Amino acid sequence: METRTFPARPLRDLATTSLASTGVPEPDARLTADSLVQADQRGIGSHGLLRLPLYVSALRAGGINPRPTLTWVRRHGAVAVLDADAALGQIALDRALEHVVAQARHHGVAAVAVQNSTHYGAGAYWTDRLADHGLIGIVTSTTGPAVAPHGGATPLLGTNPLTIAVPTADDAPLTADMATSAGAYGKVVAAANEGRPLPEGWAVDARGRPTTDAEEALSGALLPFGGAKGSGLSVLLEALAASLTTAAFAHRTEDIWADRGARMNTGHLLLALDTDAFTGRAHTERKVSDLRDRVRACGATGTHVHAPGDPERRAAATAAREGVPLSPATVDLLDALATELGLTAPSDLPWTDGGTDTPGGGAT
Amino acid sequence: METRTFPARPLRDLATTSLASTGVPEPDARLTADSLVQADQRGIGSHGLLRLPLYVSALRAGGINPRPTLTWVRRHGAVAVLDADAALGQIALDRALEHVVAQARHHGVAAVAVQNSTHYGAGAYWTDRLADHGLIGIVTSTTGPAVAPHGGATPLLGTNPLTIAVPTADDAPLTADMATSAGAYGKVVAAANEGRPLPEGWAVDARGRPTTDAEEALSGALLPFGGAKGSGLSVLLEALAASLTTAAFAHRTEDIWADRGARMNTGHLLLALDTDAFTGRAHTERKVSDLRDRVRACGATGTHVHAPGDPERRAAATAAREGVPLSPATVDLLDALATELGLTAPSDLPWTDGGTDTPGGGAT
Repeated sequence: METRTFPARPLRDLATTSLASTGVPEPDARLTADSLVQADQRGIGSHGLLRLPLYVSALRAGGINPRPTLTWVRRHGAVAVLDADAALGQIALDRALEHVVAQARHHGVAAVAVQNSTHYGAGAYWTDRLADHGLIGIVTSTTGPAVAPHGGATPLLGTNPLTIAVPTADDAPLTADMATSAGAYGKVVAAANEGRPLPEGWAVDARGRPTTDAEEALSGALLPFGGAKGSGLSVLLEALAASLTTAAFAHRTEDIWADRGARMNTGHLLLALDTDAFTGRAHTERKVSDLRDRVRACGATGTHVHAPGDPERRAAATAAREGVPLSPATVDLLDALATELGLTAPSDLPWTDGGTDTPGGGAT
Repeated sequence: METRTFPARPLRDLATTSLASTGVPEPDARLTADSLVQADQRGIGSHGLLRLPLYVSALRAGGINPRPTLTWVRRHGAVAVLDADAALGQIALDRALEHVVAQARHHGVAAVAVQNSTHYGAGAYWTDRLADHGLIGIVTSTTGPAVAPHGGATPLLGTNPLTIAVPTADDAPLTADMATSAGAYGKVVAAANEGRPLPEGWAVDARGRPTTDAEEALSGALLPFGGAKGSGLSVLLEALAASLTTAAFAHRTEDIWADRGARMNTGHLLLALDTDAFTGRAHTERKVSDLRDRVRACGATGTHVHAPGDPERRAAATAAREGVPLSPATVDLLDALATELGLTAPSDLPWTDGGTDTPGGGAT
């Protein structure tokens, strides 16, 4: 069955109503819904509405707190520690972002470390909002355990996403948004279910030996992208995301994917630099636009090179014309959720066949 | 011919005197010498005394300014822009570091962007000094043009080093220090000279096609490590290192390796976070030590996994016992320089055969 495309507004409404049904205040539900739908619009289905049923069940089971009390544990100059009280990660990041923007405006650079949080969706949703303010944004997070360091055999690390966005002079920032695992955990599960092999370099078995067998990978570990260099980066991101607060390292995290009632105690680190505090927003944005244009043009004659974020931007442009692309599996999950809640199922919306874009790049 | 090991002090004196002979003030010469010798002690010969003859000739030719006037172009809250007046990168970073430590202590986080600089040596020399103060350090830099973005054919980007260090409770910080190119430019030159093939994934030819031919690579470009993810990271580092100041992107940089009189206008970005401004230095350091110990222990039974920075630390411990390891090519270069300046040549020092450690990891 093919990917189908749906109008964005009713999907957003479905997600908002579903989240609100668990006790999440309507504005919080709407923000979270928007972050999920935007991920699908950008072709990052792994961080889109696929996650909605999980969020709803974790909100019911207590793994995510629908009505959290967010607390500033520490505020010192340009930095702060936010305890999110097991909030939806989107609510935690929204609060952290508001604070970091104000502080970066004042001090030129600012950082917020978050503890007791959960999944925040795709990192670019947040860094691109910072870029809209003329700020450079950097964000990373712990996750559940999934990745063995280079040479290791056990899933000590998370998939440790790293998102960096720098504003440009025109339409959209230059944004790198990646998990630091070589592949996505969801794709390993899918390969195991379908008996397909994994690409080389994605995983090791339980004895630390390279494997392309997805079942063996699930009892072993994923690997970082990029060998020893990617592994070093991933270990340092684990330290940045969890060591400045009481947040849990991945190896101590029980993921809500495994137990809907588990308190993940996810940690995030959000950094912002105000381009205006250096040589000025206009100057920086012009330079970054120039860099991005040169990346696009640096291929062999007749070829086009993607600048970071281009695939997601192209997918979003297509989605704006044609609707939000959802996989059949995601539609089935949303139909079931909608039916349970007495809401309009996506399959009963006016959908059309085929997203023309292959989802590209993106976080995992 | 084998690597030989030499006592550190006379090497440092040779480097100091050589630099001072071009007009560099003695304290600046000594600091630069220390950064070069430390790189050799850590097994990162590419950033060690191998570079001394280049520095000396660029200082004579005007590519590096022996007596620069460093100027704060902008100081705003926790951020600043430093113009290094073509100083040795070590002198620029030393000034930037002093400022960033004071500002991070005050504001919790601070950043210095540097323009009109040159090579600063190995990044870990600087981040590890921040970690000694209980600060998390992050540093990146532009370089000369060397790397094509994923899918590209021309050397648009630099090797864009990234160094991140987080303090631990004991001997040494957790430090990732890497070029974001898959391989080192110096190794490609060496392979071309010796007619050896390159590892897969290191380079493309002038038409953007993957190649293991070192000659073809030199007329094409190196590649980022880690495919599209590493490429995205490298592009964003290029933006971070050059877009906040008037520093030159790699594609506009004429490297002093190519022309000793060229003004590179290198850009750096140095970030520091004070662990004491979050949940406290002792708390962060304990957590990071625990993470590092778990990385070392996460291999299959009977194996040992390197935590980031371990190979360099092991090399440094060996060098402390046995002396500073230098390759025959580096010894020849230093002998020639010493003879020219009427100084004691390394070959006339009491050297011994063989460094027992294979140089590991490290920046390129």
